[in-house]
Amino acid sequence: MEIEYSNIKVIGFDADDTLWVNETYFRDAEAEFADLLSQFETKNKIDQELFKMELKNLPMYGYGIKGFVLSMVEMALELSNNTVANTTIQEILNIGKRMINKPVELLDGVEDVLQTLSQSYRLIVATKGDLLDQERKLQQSGLLQYFHHIEVLSDKKEENYSKLLNHLDIKPSEFLMIGNSLKSDVLPLINIKAHAIHVPFHTTWLHEQVTETETNGKAYKTISALPEVLKLLN
Amino acid sequence: MEIEYSNIKVIGFDADDTLWVNETYFRDAEAEFADLLSQFETKNKIDQELFKMELKNLPMYGYGIKGFVLSMVEMALELSNNTVANTTIQEILNIGKRMINKPVELLDGVEDVLQTLSQSYRLIVATKGDLLDQERKLQQSGLLQYFHHIEVLSDKKEENYSKLLNHLDIKPSEFLMIGNSLKSDVLPLINIKAHAIHVPFHTTWLHEQVTETETNGKAYKTISALPEVLKLLN
Repeated sequence: MEIEYSNIKVIGFDADDTLWVNETYFRDAEAEFADLLSQFETKNKIDQELFKMELKNLPMYGYGIKGFVLSMVEMALELSNNTVANTTIQEILNIGKRMINKPVELLDGVEDVLQTLSQSYRLIVATKGDLLDQERKLQQSGLLQYFHHIEVLSDKKEENYSKLLNHLDIKPSEFLMIGNSLKSDVLPLINIKAHAIHVPFHTTWLHEQVTETETNGKAYKTISALPEVLKLLN
Repeated sequence: MEIEYSNIKVIGFDADDTLWVNETYFRDAEAEFADLLSQFETKNKIDQELFKMELKNLPMYGYGIKGFVLSMVEMALELSNNTVANTTIQEILNIGKRMINKPVELLDGVEDVLQTLSQSYRLIVATKGDLLDQERKLQQSGLLQYFHHIEVLSDKKEENYSKLLNHLDIKPSEFLMIGNSLKSDVLPLINIKAHAIHVPFHTTWLHEQVTETETNGKAYKTISALPEVLKLLN
């Protein structure tokens, strides 16, 4: 399928797992959490229950590390029938603090890509993570200079992106989103007639997974690593 | 002091305690928290220690309810020397959920002011709260239609506002901020040569308080209730 990128004025980059490693840290945290509660349940069961708890709390807590930690605390109380040790609760809080303080690990070629594209396009970060976390990571990463600003979306659905384009004062055909999540960074954009390029990350949170019928016939490109975007846009 | 508002193009409104009640709910939550831990310490001591804990965690957690709840959990473990009951931890999580689900209580005259000003200015919400919380409140309040968009700032310091003005593509003299916090909504704006109007709320979080020397000679107006802004701007 031929896709025409010549109208693009603004490129939105997802941050977590597109610019830098993130989901891996959640997987690691889940493993630590299951270890802490191993006297109560199997890792498999704990993973499943934690996922359910996160989904249940998502409308209240939204995305990000703090809501994840609150769900882990609630899960520990529930799974243990209120017998979990205080020191375990403390350990759960510490898992969260370590996640927040993780050094930024850039994905391959990211800086090069941003440096090149920032010469011809206005670049923004479009994320549903926590603003403070994302600003901290951008600062640490040294990538801040390439971005016009950070857009925090409470969710990445069609209406959130429509609002974003309205706010940027551009037409859908002038916006390209690049990210690792089909559900959040690709499909809603195609549905509102904007552009999207998919760069899969090796791990995808279950909540972000989509079925093949949802992607069928949709006009987006998939690339295996971010630097390939330069071939599509230049 | 005469202040000239004729260049204003965009007006930023603080949300919590400017458009609707918020700080009161934190005070109520602190009282509930102190009740829950009353076997360990006096209310006064608990309030003081919780405030210290919040400040310690602020660089990691930022502003908003979720960070506040995480600090309460940590405080409960520490104050009780790890003897606090699991049911108390559960109660602390519930305090947070109730805060998140509180119905929006608009301050007097807010809708009228927004309706009038939205005819002549671009209005935005500029908040350091949680985006999801603020969007939910705007939606519930029926005020969404008056605002061009919501700007979430990780903090409200001069550099955050400078970035915001850059992002809005306007000069400082074209921006007016209206809010209840001298520290966050007024002084940083005056310092970057933008405009600000102060509308005090009856309760101010200790962290937001400023000394008289900080406000001395600064070119901003104070009004006693939001509707008075119409007299200054029209």
